[in-house]
Amino acid sequence: MHAFRSHSCADLTKANVGDTVRLSGWVHRIRDHGGILFIDLRDHYGITQVLCDPDSPVFAQVEKVRSEWCIRIDGSVKARDADLVNPKLPTGEIEVFVRDMEVLGAAEELPLMVFGDQEYPEETRLRYRYLDLRREQMQRNMTLRSDVVASMRKRMWEKNFREYQTPIITASSPEGARDFLVPSRLHPGKFYALPQAPQQFKQLIMVSGFDKYFQIAPCFRDEDPRADRSPTDFYQLDMEMSFVEQQDVFDTIAPVIAGVFEEFGGGRKVDAPQDWPQIPYKEAALKYGTDKPDLRNPIEMQDVSEHFRGSGFAIFAKLLEQDGTEIRAIPAPTGGSRKFCDRMNAFAQKEGLPGMGYIFWRDQGEGMEAAGPLAKNIGPERTEAIRQQLGLGIGDAAFFLGGKPAVFEKVAGKARTVIGDELGLTDLNRFAFAWIVDFPIYEKDEESGKIDFEHNPFSMPQGGMEALMGDPLAVKGYQYDLACNGYELVSGAIRNHRPEIMFKAFEIAGYGKDEVIKRFGGMVNAFKFGAPPHGGCAAGIDRIVMLLADQQNIREVIMFPMNQRAEDLMMQAPSDPTSDQLMELGLRVIPQD
Amino acid sequence: MHAFRSHSCADLTKANVGDTVRLSGWVHRIRDHGGILFIDLRDHYGITQVLCDPDSPVFAQVEKVRSEWCIRIDGSVKARDADLVNPKLPTGEIEVFVRDMEVLGAAEELPLMVFGDQEYPEETRLRYRYLDLRREQMQRNMTLRSDVVASMRKRMWEKNFREYQTPIITASSPEGARDFLVPSRLHPGKFYALPQAPQQFKQLIMVSGFDKYFQIAPCFRDEDPRADRSPTDFYQLDMEMSFVEQQDVFDTIAPVIAGVFEEFGGGRKVDAPQDWPQIPYKEAALKYGTDKPDLRNPIEMQDVSEHFRGSGFAIFAKLLEQDGTEIRAIPAPTGGSRKFCDRMNAFAQKEGLPGMGYIFWRDQGEGMEAAGPLAKNIGPERTEAIRQQLGLGIGDAAFFLGGKPAVFEKVAGKARTVIGDELGLTDLNRFAFAWIVDFPIYEKDEESGKIDFEHNPFSMPQGGMEALMGDPLAVKGYQYDLACNGYELVSGAIRNHRPEIMFKAFEIAGYGKDEVIKRFGGMVNAFKFGAPPHGGCAAGIDRIVMLLADQQNIREVIMFPMNQRAEDLMMQAPSDPTSDQLMELGLRVIPQD
Repeated sequence: MHAFRSHSCADLTKANVGDTVRLSGWVHRIRDHGGILFIDLRDHYGITQVLCDPDSPVFAQVEKVRSEWCIRIDGSVKARDADLVNPKLPTGEIEVFVRDMEVLGAAEELPLMVFGDQEYPEETRLRYRYLDLRREQMQRNMTLRSDVVASMRKRMWEKNFREYQTPIITASSPEGARDFLVPSRLHPGKFYALPQAPQQFKQLIMVSGFDKYFQIAPCFRDEDPRADRSPTDFYQLDMEMSFVEQQDVFDTIAPVIAGVFEEFGGGRKVDAPQDWPQIPYKEAALKYGTDKPDLRNPIEMQDVSEHFRGSGFAIFAKLLEQDGTEIRAIPAPTGGSRKFCDRMNAFAQKEGLPGMGYIFWRDQGEGMEAAGPLAKNIGPERTEAIRQQLGLGIGDAAFFLGGKPAVFEKVAGKARTVIGDELGLTDLNRFAFAWIVDFPIYEKDEESGKIDFEHNPFSMPQGGMEALMGDPLAVKGYQYDLACNGYELVSGAIRNHRPEIMFKAFEIAGYGKDEVIKRFGGMVNAFKFGAPPHGGCAAGIDRIVMLLADQQNIREVIMFPMNQRAEDLMMQAPSDPTSDQLMELGLRVIPQD
Repeated sequence: MHAFRSHSCADLTKANVGDTVRLSGWVHRIRDHGGILFIDLRDHYGITQVLCDPDSPVFAQVEKVRSEWCIRIDGSVKARDADLVNPKLPTGEIEVFVRDMEVLGAAEELPLMVFGDQEYPEETRLRYRYLDLRREQMQRNMTLRSDVVASMRKRMWEKNFREYQTPIITASSPEGARDFLVPSRLHPGKFYALPQAPQQFKQLIMVSGFDKYFQIAPCFRDEDPRADRSPTDFYQLDMEMSFVEQQDVFDTIAPVIAGVFEEFGGGRKVDAPQDWPQIPYKEAALKYGTDKPDLRNPIEMQDVSEHFRGSGFAIFAKLLEQDGTEIRAIPAPTGGSRKFCDRMNAFAQKEGLPGMGYIFWRDQGEGMEAAGPLAKNIGPERTEAIRQQLGLGIGDAAFFLGGKPAVFEKVAGKARTVIGDELGLTDLNRFAFAWIVDFPIYEKDEESGKIDFEHNPFSMPQGGMEALMGDPLAVKGYQYDLACNGYELVSGAIRNHRPEIMFKAFEIAGYGKDEVIKRFGGMVNAFKFGAPPHGGCAAGIDRIVMLLADQQNIREVIMFPMNQRAEDLMMQAPSDPTSDQLMELGLRVIPQD
């Protein structure tokens, strides 16, 4: 017989009754029922009930074991009495009578119980991560993550993509966040950087003629900690392909993402890729107040400025006399009660706005009545026109926000979410996807008036060189995001592979040719030697697993995460370097006050 | 039609004759044959011959393209004349007549030609890696690497292993090499380290109850550069499993390795895993002079001390009077000529030894004669006894080395290799594997007399605590390597998961309990809470791909390698940090002289 096990703790069924078996695992629970010891023996695969009565030659030893001891037992399989069968357990029809036992690893008093649902402070969980990870939910989260990544790989291979590894110790990458630096010992005083993303390398792989690339890529950003962000590294499904247009990238990656959500979504509805809308950035901002809309929520905001221009509602009427202002409505089907409307108004105030005007429609016996102060101010005709535009009726409401969209759009988006949630309009049992397209290439800093890249400087402007000759703020890029349930899951672009268009694009943002070559020389030089058109995207793996596992905290889906102060409490990182190490690297630590 | 291609450059066959097609790719070669332009158009998948005659509406444009321009062409497929068919090319039966062309990416004058076999200095190849990678051999090497890694993953999944990612920004790991450090911004003056291997983390995953782990893991060691070693990072197929003994690890990983070699070995013979010998470390040293023997070479060295003790060959006879000395023979079947023997003797001298004595056997008309000075000195009886022990005959030779094995073993191993190669005994068309087992846990420093770990301090000593109570130098570990064709491909161990045995093992090597907890606290603490018996191994991926691709230099199988001075010439790494970066990290660079 094998030294440690003939079966896993999930294997034994009625078919094994009478067999002599050997199991290894952890003592999940141990109980004494009238002198008989009951152990739930647990391994990665399941739980088997193990019994030891005083007749057993090892009763005295078994009496000593405690929770989370790792033991090996030999015993014989018996059928449980019919009334003791546990249908919830695959091994629920049998139990094993212990004849021999060996302690493989004893346990000291536990700082964290594996059995049960007790909650522990995050610091405890991270310090004793190896105990925390033994808990059922964490075992599930980690295997889910592993299975999701494996499924992504298989799906990319099926699409004839190959995975190529790009350097991890490399030069600073231009993603805009802060690099982690790595001092060089062979070149003291000089530093490598960990890649914020393999952006330049994957583009170089295209220039090298590999046609299709993907990688489950670790990305490193030295960012200030946040609940949904690892303070050090995260993983992307990164891909790039040559000789493609935007739609080709969509057609390639959408089935991969949809497939993963179908495979691991636990039966929740997954929108089919051919139904994913392509929403221009500007339209998304108008309708949803965000470029990562949650389309499970059916509410779409609308521009209702015309109904308020010159109306009796002086605040909005005056607002509209200023350039660049707008009034937008958030329709709230079934939200037609003063109580609800007041609550939403209070919400807007809490978010820093003066409030949200509202109208709601109720049945007043002789027909529909539009209620709320706004309706009174603008009069019945305008009120009715608004109702008709929004397609609302009795029992519904609408909220109104006005001013410069940049000022109120974010709150409007949040209000839309809260309204959808509170009214139960949002289908929580669904994954709803949308491509957000036509991102602007440039943005203008309100204060300095300076033009800068809105996002990624490497995207191809729609209309190419010609477009760059006109108004920069009107230039849209072949740049796109995939939103799902209010999160950005994927981001990508068709790249600007023409050196002359790239230099022009940078020039508009105030970067001279020398500066561009200095910062992105590796890639820009490559483009001089026959670069193919190419594009791609990257999907956030931690985020996808969080959605699938229904978790709010990224640390629930990472095996050994840092805490929010970017410390590893278990391994004691970061720590003091030795003076030899510093000397070799040619560095000195500046004493902190 | 698609904007860039209806087919790849490997797709078109006779079945497409008459079709209008669109292709994109690089101008591999362009020739002018009597006014007609012939272009070999190349993409990742293949080459298609494209023709342009003066009747084509784009003749003037096509005339301007040069090697490595990236172009898109439209044209019609025609069958080649029978005598112009190229059977070596999948598309060799057709050619495409150009009707339209677009330059997608022009190329400046090339610093490195893609077409042809011209050799370039490594610095040029690395600086223009994106051109170097377009060459056929490099495309093959990179796709091979990708396919090997994919195959490893599939094979591990089939064995019910899951891949779990371990931290890359973490604490110093105890592999014995030099860490790369990463300064912390949030904790100025403190440093993270990049993992030399996920050793501690994979053991923690076992303590966390995951049963089976693998990872294609990047490993980071700040080592001085060498031809067969990347100066920064390398990849391992890393695996670990719980509740196993040594043979279980062998049975798991051997079919994975063998499978990969069969799949990608290009028809070379691969020894079947059940035939891989398990050779104790000591025996390997004796027979092969190394712990990574090349078993394609049938030569096995033997201890022949007895034949020289008290013999007329005074040098050896005297040597044998000292403690710990031995005489070993390297049999050299078919090496029986003075010329060959003298060459091998010269080889040993070049390696720093006084030389190798030899005997060779020849046919002297009236029978066999043993020739060479040694035979004369020890006389015919001893000579014949040696011949019989070694199983040699007419036309064969044997070489002899004496002294303390530690002094001559390495040269003996090299001599064995050279003899096997020169005599054509080594089967170059084969992958020959052997497990090397029973590594000693400790070694004694000859000078200081101090006992230290021979290799990995985390291996379980054979015999457990009891063995540690005896002579440390006699303690063998459950520690093993897999050798293939003279390289170490895999290394692993059954781990020491019992804290009390671990502390004792460290104590013998002179490390106190506090020191152990300080250096390896993350793992040692975990062992106090019910650690399972576990073990595993790691296979060097770069090395495996080198063997399969028949490459001698690791940079031939890495997409974007550093040069031997640990510089990335293309991306300009390492580079000077900004003063802001240094300030944020609380560091100052010490000026170098």
